[in-house]
Amino acid sequence: MPSSMSFRSHTCGELKSDHVGQHVTLCGWVQYLQDLFVILRDFSGMTQVLIPQDITVESVVQVKGRVRKRPAGQENKMPTGEIEVLAESVDVFNVCRKLPFEIKDFVKKSESLRMLYRYLDLRSGQMQKNLRMRSELVMKMREYLCKVHFVDVETPTLFKRTPGGAKEFVVPSREPGRFYSLPQSPQQFKQLLMVAGVDRYFQIARCYRDEGSKPDRQPEFTQVDIEMSFVDKGGIMSLVEGLLQYSWPAEKGPIQVPFQTMTYEEAMRDYGMDKPDTRFGMKTGSVQAICVPNGANLFTGKDLNKLKETAKTQFDQELNVVLVRADGTVKSLNKHLSQSTRDELLPKTGAQPGDLLIMAARLLLGNLRLQCAEILESYGVTVYDPLAFHFLWVVDFPLFLPNAEEPGKLDSVHHPFTAPLPEDKQLLYTEPQKQVRGQHYDLVLNGCEIGGGSIRFHKASEQLHVLTNILKEDPSCLSHLLDALDSGAPPHGGIALLDRLVSIMVGAPSIRDVIAFPKSFRGHDLMSCAPDLVSEEELKCYHISV
Amino acid sequence: MPSSMSFRSHTCGELKSDHVGQHVTLCGWVQYLQDLFVILRDFSGMTQVLIPQDITVESVVQVKGRVRKRPAGQENKMPTGEIEVLAESVDVFNVCRKLPFEIKDFVKKSESLRMLYRYLDLRSGQMQKNLRMRSELVMKMREYLCKVHFVDVETPTLFKRTPGGAKEFVVPSREPGRFYSLPQSPQQFKQLLMVAGVDRYFQIARCYRDEGSKPDRQPEFTQVDIEMSFVDKGGIMSLVEGLLQYSWPAEKGPIQVPFQTMTYEEAMRDYGMDKPDTRFGMKTGSVQAICVPNGANLFTGKDLNKLKETAKTQFDQELNVVLVRADGTVKSLNKHLSQSTRDELLPKTGAQPGDLLIMAARLLLGNLRLQCAEILESYGVTVYDPLAFHFLWVVDFPLFLPNAEEPGKLDSVHHPFTAPLPEDKQLLYTEPQKQVRGQHYDLVLNGCEIGGGSIRFHKASEQLHVLTNILKEDPSCLSHLLDALDSGAPPHGGIALLDRLVSIMVGAPSIRDVIAFPKSFRGHDLMSCAPDLVSEEELKCYHISV
Repeated sequence: MPSSMSFRSHTCGELKSDHVGQHVTLCGWVQYLQDLFVILRDFSGMTQVLIPQDITVESVVQVKGRVRKRPAGQENKMPTGEIEVLAESVDVFNVCRKLPFEIKDFVKKSESLRMLYRYLDLRSGQMQKNLRMRSELVMKMREYLCKVHFVDVETPTLFKRTPGGAKEFVVPSREPGRFYSLPQSPQQFKQLLMVAGVDRYFQIARCYRDEGSKPDRQPEFTQVDIEMSFVDKGGIMSLVEGLLQYSWPAEKGPIQVPFQTMTYEEAMRDYGMDKPDTRFGMKTGSVQAICVPNGANLFTGKDLNKLKETAKTQFDQELNVVLVRADGTVKSLNKHLSQSTRDELLPKTGAQPGDLLIMAARLLLGNLRLQCAEILESYGVTVYDPLAFHFLWVVDFPLFLPNAEEPGKLDSVHHPFTAPLPEDKQLLYTEPQKQVRGQHYDLVLNGCEIGGGSIRFHKASEQLHVLTNILKEDPSCLSHLLDALDSGAPPHGGIALLDRLVSIMVGAPSIRDVIAFPKSFRGHDLMSCAPDLVSEEELKCYHISV
Repeated sequence: MPSSMSFRSHTCGELKSDHVGQHVTLCGWVQYLQDLFVILRDFSGMTQVLIPQDITVESVVQVKGRVRKRPAGQENKMPTGEIEVLAESVDVFNVCRKLPFEIKDFVKKSESLRMLYRYLDLRSGQMQKNLRMRSELVMKMREYLCKVHFVDVETPTLFKRTPGGAKEFVVPSREPGRFYSLPQSPQQFKQLLMVAGVDRYFQIARCYRDEGSKPDRQPEFTQVDIEMSFVDKGGIMSLVEGLLQYSWPAEKGPIQVPFQTMTYEEAMRDYGMDKPDTRFGMKTGSVQAICVPNGANLFTGKDLNKLKETAKTQFDQELNVVLVRADGTVKSLNKHLSQSTRDELLPKTGAQPGDLLIMAARLLLGNLRLQCAEILESYGVTVYDPLAFHFLWVVDFPLFLPNAEEPGKLDSVHHPFTAPLPEDKQLLYTEPQKQVRGQHYDLVLNGCEIGGGSIRFHKASEQLHVLTNILKEDPSCLSHLLDALDSGAPPHGGIALLDRLVSIMVGAPSIRDVIAFPKSFRGHDLMSCAPDLVSEEELKCYHISV
């Protein structure tokens, strides 16, 4: 890039002893001041500068000067620790007021203060790194997808309400009573692009979901959205494996492919959940018990009470907690154990003296397993490698599950466009209430769902059958999609990868740490006060009133 | 890419005589059928296949067979014109119904039919090409920006209403009376990112503008949004020149940089508009006349009436039309010309015998100049090279103009964040009603504005002065931005490039031709019927009613 594009000759992070003697121009923020010394910071790092001038911390300056070796004994191990810049002139671009908090990574700030002054929070080294890693990851993904002939196509976000779109924001139009809707994903459009012969589509797509207040959910979020024609389940899975392998940051270590694959049934049986954390064992096993290694020795009464509380409040169940004594006999803390249970418990769980066994219903065990891992970690036991990334495909999900309120009615587990496994297809017409397995695949990383997709119906008659006869929905608002399937639709499928992937990659506790301007869990932008009051006058053209 | 990712071994466009003898698997649409011959099409092109089977046009099939040379005399110049595939097996993935129009580029369809069946319209060679060229252009732009250290940062689209945001869609939230707003650009967020030290930001940003019905405007559109710190006007301009030079498609020919630059004042004087088409002359000149070469010979009375009508309806003005006779004397068609005007007209305009001179107010002339060029082109005169791309910077725009309704009040010409030229800065405090020139730059291509940006205020006191004292706006709803400018804001500026760039590049008449699923000029999606009616029940959680 021509140097004329910028007021600086070098960045603050790049100066080394090679530069000694050079005239340089630096621009940046005053990170730290003492006597004549100033530490100047920009996105790339920091440099020590000698400035004979009075300025305030976080002011923005341009410094012209000469690079010199630091006096003996003043060097340090920082990237620019061997040199300093002797300023010859200093231009203050902007003086900084007293800030609500210091821009130092070790200064702890409350979440709400961080959000209120997000433009200061983003100056931290960690947030700078998160945003840059996200940008780089997404760029590498684009590179890979373009290389294998995907076309980046933008699809509308002003759409119409879809059936079951209770979580879609509405946008009033200037026509009385008519509203656009902000879609939860480009699902329909990407299928239409396959019908249109685009062959391979991707988009880093903005999606919207109005769920009211939910922790770590955002009303708008981004997904890497992919769809391709003439492909099967295995094809999409190997595409995603290649994509992640190519784009994963080198500093996070290489990714092994293919990823482990597990059926939904296996995941539920062995881990009590459909997105298991496979970084560690403690499987739920065949006797519906988990074995916590050394748990009898480590867990306190308080720990056990926490587990019981989870069982009670989240599942309305009682636990059966069993200790394995030093002599290999077992002691149940609450329930009587039959002799046959006692006899098979140790062989089947592989429990050793000092271990703790927890017996409960499988879904509850899945939850308790994670909680026990956390408790063990809190005692310094290494349950899993904190730097490991365990990718896992979960496949063969059921297509439908009984509606919670009307068990006679069937709901889609994911969405109504997923095709069944070929061997289960006949069941759609004969016994849909039986567990029909779909060509759906979820991608799980360290126990978090980071993506999901499926092979879709490409025949209108089959799609119509599912909508009308199984889901009992009115197919008329999907008539454009049904018409499209009848107009020469190729076999096709796709996947969407979520924000969560980035937060796990950078090791951030929340997706808010990989989004520049996130909303609070109430959906507020604390900095600008969105959403805000709007006058009745301004709503008039939309024919609505509060 | 592993071939397991796809059902095909080759695409329909790639088979050549080199492939003769190979077994191949093709997937695609039946473009054309006659006897045993089928032309199979996919995104990449077409191949002739011999299929002993009855199918319908636009059905989707998989063909396995062997490539062979076409019989002598049957070859043609198409990319696959030397070979054909002798099918050994054919799988019909999907049978196509009778379509509302044929998928052939030469079949003319009405705009509304194209929109209603957009998934068929997109199968045309032209639309496939447009979408792919757009994808490639944007990818090259990303590559360039990443190379020069820009960070791709996503900013929210659920924001709050900005002052003067009459064209912003509102999005009701679940809190009574509170609305998000869909922003017209990420302007505030990108400035905040500079305050946050991101240094160089870009985003391919979705933007929204509710203008009701307007031809060739879309309620949602995309801009390449750029902002950088420690930069001046020249820096942004050379960045954009490098960006376009790098990403411009090779087949459209190279771009010369630097682009021509013209001040706003020069543009208004010489072309009667701030976005002149510099592919041709016919300048409005110093005597407020344009000279249409050979116009006296070519233009009919009907043509002149059209020009007069434009003058009357759009500007409420009369034209003065003057013919230059073969003998070099002039004849005014409507007004009497003074002898002095007659004397200076030809020397000043350079008019020759047979030319036509049109005299009017400058703004009107700017408009008539384009109309005259069109008329000349319709007579087969080459006014400009249809394949040429003339980029032009227009700079030094006024910062403010008097409000149309209250001439005592000043409005921002672009937005209130643009900084003045250094030499005009003092006028902000002394005589803001004088034409204060701003550090704004528009990028014009072939007479269309394709981008615009500016260097922004980075001092809170100056920004506050403009908002409060000059624009008389309540600065409270921009308090977060003013606070941010007071917290160590670097000098910064940016630009946004628009969809229109892509449509001019591919030679499309409308931006609708470079958007996969555009809205009609009424803002409707004809295919899905958005916007649609929503029940009062569904609006309840948003506390609004129609």
